[in-house]
Amino acid sequence: MVSISGVLAAASIFTLSAAQTFQRLGGCPTLGCVLPPDQTDFLAGQYFDIRLEVHAPVNGSEANGGVPDPNFAFTIAKANGPAQPAATYFKVPEPELERWNFTWYEDLFAQDAHAPSVVRVTSKAYRRVALYEPGEYVATLTYYNGTKTVANWIVRPLQQQKKAKNVILFIGDGMTTNMITAARLIAHKSINGKYQSTMMMDKFPVLGHQMTHSLDSYITDSANSASALYSGHKSTVNAMGVYADSSPDLFDDPKVETIVELLTRVWGSAIGVVSTAFVADATPIALTGHSRSRYAYGALIDQALRGVTNYTWTKFSGPDVFFGTGAEQFLPGSGSYQGKDYYAEFSSAGYSVSLNKTSLLSASNTSKALGIFSTSTLPVWLDRNVYKENLETMKNDPSGNKKPALDLPGLKEMTLKAIDILHARGGDKGFFMMSEAASIDKQMHTLDYDRALGDLLELDDTVKATVEKLKAMGELNNTLILVTADHGHGFDVFGSADTKYLSSQTNDRDKRNAIGTYASSGLSQYTITNASISYNTGVNFPVNWDPRYTLAQGVGAMPDHRENYRVHKDGPRLPATNISGHASNDYYANPKDNTDGFIVNGTIPTNEAQGVHSLTDVPVFAMGPCQELFGGVYGNIDIFFNMANCLGLARADNATGSAAEMAPNGSTTTVPATGAAPKNGIQRGLTVGMLVFQLAIGWVAFNL
Amino acid sequence: MVSISGVLAAASIFTLSAAQTFQRLGGCPTLGCVLPPDQTDFLAGQYFDIRLEVHAPVNGSEANGGVPDPNFAFTIAKANGPAQPAATYFKVPEPELERWNFTWYEDLFAQDAHAPSVVRVTSKAYRRVALYEPGEYVATLTYYNGTKTVANWIVRPLQQQKKAKNVILFIGDGMTTNMITAARLIAHKSINGKYQSTMMMDKFPVLGHQMTHSLDSYITDSANSASALYSGHKSTVNAMGVYADSSPDLFDDPKVETIVELLTRVWGSAIGVVSTAFVADATPIALTGHSRSRYAYGALIDQALRGVTNYTWTKFSGPDVFFGTGAEQFLPGSGSYQGKDYYAEFSSAGYSVSLNKTSLLSASNTSKALGIFSTSTLPVWLDRNVYKENLETMKNDPSGNKKPALDLPGLKEMTLKAIDILHARGGDKGFFMMSEAASIDKQMHTLDYDRALGDLLELDDTVKATVEKLKAMGELNNTLILVTADHGHGFDVFGSADTKYLSSQTNDRDKRNAIGTYASSGLSQYTITNASISYNTGVNFPVNWDPRYTLAQGVGAMPDHRENYRVHKDGPRLPATNISGHASNDYYANPKDNTDGFIVNGTIPTNEAQGVHSLTDVPVFAMGPCQELFGGVYGNIDIFFNMANCLGLARADNATGSAAEMAPNGSTTTVPATGAAPKNGIQRGLTVGMLVFQLAIGWVAFNL
Repeated sequence: MVSISGVLAAASIFTLSAAQTFQRLGGCPTLGCVLPPDQTDFLAGQYFDIRLEVHAPVNGSEANGGVPDPNFAFTIAKANGPAQPAATYFKVPEPELERWNFTWYEDLFAQDAHAPSVVRVTSKAYRRVALYEPGEYVATLTYYNGTKTVANWIVRPLQQQKKAKNVILFIGDGMTTNMITAARLIAHKSINGKYQSTMMMDKFPVLGHQMTHSLDSYITDSANSASALYSGHKSTVNAMGVYADSSPDLFDDPKVETIVELLTRVWGSAIGVVSTAFVADATPIALTGHSRSRYAYGALIDQALRGVTNYTWTKFSGPDVFFGTGAEQFLPGSGSYQGKDYYAEFSSAGYSVSLNKTSLLSASNTSKALGIFSTSTLPVWLDRNVYKENLETMKNDPSGNKKPALDLPGLKEMTLKAIDILHARGGDKGFFMMSEAASIDKQMHTLDYDRALGDLLELDDTVKATVEKLKAMGELNNTLILVTADHGHGFDVFGSADTKYLSSQTNDRDKRNAIGTYASSGLSQYTITNASISYNTGVNFPVNWDPRYTLAQGVGAMPDHRENYRVHKDGPRLPATNISGHASNDYYANPKDNTDGFIVNGTIPTNEAQGVHSLTDVPVFAMGPCQELFGGVYGNIDIFFNMANCLGLARADNATGSAAEMAPNGSTTTVPATGAAPKNGIQRGLTVGMLVFQLAIGWVAFNL
Repeated sequence: MVSISGVLAAASIFTLSAAQTFQRLGGCPTLGCVLPPDQTDFLAGQYFDIRLEVHAPVNGSEANGGVPDPNFAFTIAKANGPAQPAATYFKVPEPELERWNFTWYEDLFAQDAHAPSVVRVTSKAYRRVALYEPGEYVATLTYYNGTKTVANWIVRPLQQQKKAKNVILFIGDGMTTNMITAARLIAHKSINGKYQSTMMMDKFPVLGHQMTHSLDSYITDSANSASALYSGHKSTVNAMGVYADSSPDLFDDPKVETIVELLTRVWGSAIGVVSTAFVADATPIALTGHSRSRYAYGALIDQALRGVTNYTWTKFSGPDVFFGTGAEQFLPGSGSYQGKDYYAEFSSAGYSVSLNKTSLLSASNTSKALGIFSTSTLPVWLDRNVYKENLETMKNDPSGNKKPALDLPGLKEMTLKAIDILHARGGDKGFFMMSEAASIDKQMHTLDYDRALGDLLELDDTVKATVEKLKAMGELNNTLILVTADHGHGFDVFGSADTKYLSSQTNDRDKRNAIGTYASSGLSQYTITNASISYNTGVNFPVNWDPRYTLAQGVGAMPDHRENYRVHKDGPRLPATNISGHASNDYYANPKDNTDGFIVNGTIPTNEAQGVHSLTDVPVFAMGPCQELFGGVYGNIDIFFNMANCLGLARADNATGSAAEMAPNGSTTTVPATGAAPKNGIQRGLTVGMLVFQLAIGWVAFNL
């Protein structure tokens, strides 16, 4: 519980609770902020920073005449023990006082009136500390003459024994149970209600549900949900590896150590990152990134290669495998950090560099490996395997030559090659790999259900091939395999659509009568062989993507659009376009999309071009050592804690499992002991790359 | 696999596959039908009927000049053993040949043209047979000079040992993971992303997913999905306890024995049926009902009391507890079977009869108990506990006096009282209870999300109270508790709605800007105590149902409607009305619903007044003996098989576990041995009650 006392508390709380969807600062419902906030769980020995802020709103809910307290105090107490000043407790010098101002809107009316509230801030940050003893802690910020913000922290029970040699974490971005159900229906044959084959996920022995909420909003994005999975700490939308503070610097927010950093430091295992997204995208980059903004792409790629460099932090020198797309952050130019050539930067650091499937498959298994196979996101499975002609119109070659990238691996090829490399490089120290099917989410956003389900089936096919490969290698019993998601979309199937009938009708209401519900939903026609179909996409995928009777499917949250429930053969769908001529974005149904369909008007703000994430708990499928930890219902942070316990990553003191002791591949770098002073105080300046980014997204937008 | 040979097969298959959502007969894709069909699983010793049909379509895909084969043959072979005529195999006389005609539409174009296809049928039915030996069977229908329909059947491995004394099956009708997530959000407080309490379901140790598809359509209704849960046999939409055949009689379809019938026959345990629906509704009545039509309410109530009487079948003489609503089928009149007074019928059979909560709570625990607490469906939790004034305008007293029923129990009171009775009556023989939260589904149909989630929370509160009660009774460790659903609705939450801002805007597009997505979804305000709120709904329910910032939520399948995302204080929502003046139903947004909201146009046929069921797998939460059987992903029929195995209901021969051996409460009724001839051949006449029903729903409608 956050306890509040003092004369100013009541008024400020009232204001905040009346406008709770617009928050001054997430994790901080009072005028004194402790980050990590109340109710935070820690792994014993996990590095983290602490940020304290005292707020003085200038208008609206004023505090202390608009003057933030420069003399706040902060103490730590273990269990019912004595409270000690934090600098004493952690044996660090007292941090310097920082000051800044920020603004926020109290609600939509204030936003419409362009009337932001100004807040003045005093702050301190303690860098790279850790709690080693399991149990309860009380962190107390005292400000404004005795007002207190109390954060109750818990260090989870110690588990130092390594039970799994390897962990593979598959993430179907945005993947829900509903989508798995639909994918199974179109890909697996059924006779009289009995499936003749099922998804690989369906065969996993243990099933759980994870709650995906962020720290300060019940709908999450992929950055902070990935961060929760990787670090055990929920954060704010768009943030990763940090608790978002209110300062202008996107890279000074209080950090938390990720599983990749812990595993490198404690055991020196090999690390693999594989995604069908651009590798700077939230899900892959949150393994190593520490920033309030997922959009600082270039700088986050630099963090992936070199670790955190602006503050003392645990050492990290790049994953062993880094496969995906997003050449924009590697080609020298406006998209790359400081304009540098990151192919060259990775190559200098000892990486093989592959820009196509042929090169990927022939890359050394003993060197670190970078594979960047296109600009932007990888073309989806449906375009790579069925509607291949759509690839030829693209200018996505990762060399930047503006030609189409045609020699493309899929998630399966990337993942299987990654296992070869990780197995060779990890050796007895094992490996951790995150493999992401990113376009389940991306295609659900644009209501392109076929492409989303195609990539979900590609994920399942990859999981199946992974299990088979590990079995053949003799590593299956050593490997914890998890298949889960980071959040959902409110998707479901509600019947069938007779596309012939729908297209033949001339008005929108009559077109809707093409939908067959209940008994008239009938049976899936995606699994019926049709001699006129030229593509053969093998087992466990639909044999006909364009039957007369298709799935009638959709979401509850969408922009204006038109539905005809047919596959989009000409390329990924664009459901809504900004055709109003307004200066601000104002989206209507794309007049070129599904021209024979009927209009469905949107349910979300008209400046949203795409559907949005949803609330639902998402499934967790587990197999291998520690699988029993993943049954039932729990929070997304518990995935981290369970993986960390299975890997024995908790540490009772700072003398064990240091990078010096267990550095990967025999390196002998050392890490300063916990409690070292921050390097050169606080770095507040933004680099060129970060500044470009910040101007692009705008400061007011962040404050929303 | 259904194997087909013969000259007529190719043409008919082509026609059917081109119009698969309109099926001539579910489970029968060829001209020869075997019910139970190919891929059927059986419990060893479970009673069932067999229906054979040979079809001769007169137009469309003609067969044999429109003359159905009267000389078809049917054989059974165990594993690779010899095929024997079924009458020989089962030691029953050869059934009489039956004949009828039926019609169906090949697709929507044929329906628009009012051009049904006529099919002539020859048929036989074998009544009350069983397979006692586990393993594979081949059932072969030979017709039209050598054309064959082959059904592969499996009798599951024998498990005769009883591992659980009691089984309680909670069904949240239509309940999905998405809804549980939303209910948790509005009822349980969270601090910085960590819940301070969670749902009782969340605490169950084992989680599974069940696939809900029906036999012949991928979207199910509650009748055939309940039937799959209770019997291990999927059926057709609207059917229960039978495989739907094409004959006009709604009560001659081939039956399958339910868990209630098996448990009564084998162990003589006490049986409880509890629902917030009318007790003749699909989910409660499918425990004992055997009919192709869930709408034959009166006759199904008679079956609940007396068991099947028109054919030789296992004896059943009413559940020990029968609690719910639906006085229409009990008051003498047009809604009751043969116009009789079913309060009197049950009373004559030894039941206590309660018509209100006071009477319920004081009813004897040693007598069988009927409790009917209102007409129609029970008013929902939100109206019973928060907006109580809505009860006073109703005319739903179960006595039929047209006054409001105000002394109402909820699901919790009914369920806890049921446990007292079942515990007393079952004694050492234990009990089985199904307890249904029906209005999760009913209120989702009408897009009344608050009422649906309220009843979901009532279910969870009931589960919690049940666990506590069983623990206090010393029965918790003897009781397998399952919480699951029968199907879903495509519901999810996608943000928050600033209802004040929404209401203040004057056009639909501007109103949509009240929706807060991602970070702007903020935190749940349903859990924030507000001094102006007069109701107190206790723990684990929202403390404020009408906050300014509400859940923005919805479904993908809906009629035209208007959304403002506020609770409907004046009573359950009616989202769409038939205002067009057309003779046929043609639904538009109800002009009286959410008048300050924005229009969302529908995605389903315009003759649908409500949202429809969806595809998604639904969760299964398990606790108690045999809980380990319920992890992972499986079919809905596996719930039956797992419960049956846990209860040791399989039988290796017809000499064990007969009603004579194990009759409940010392009764000494005997059941004829398996293989007895059907009583008086085939009963084809419809009773008065059934006929009234059949005219009401129409024959063509059934054929769709």
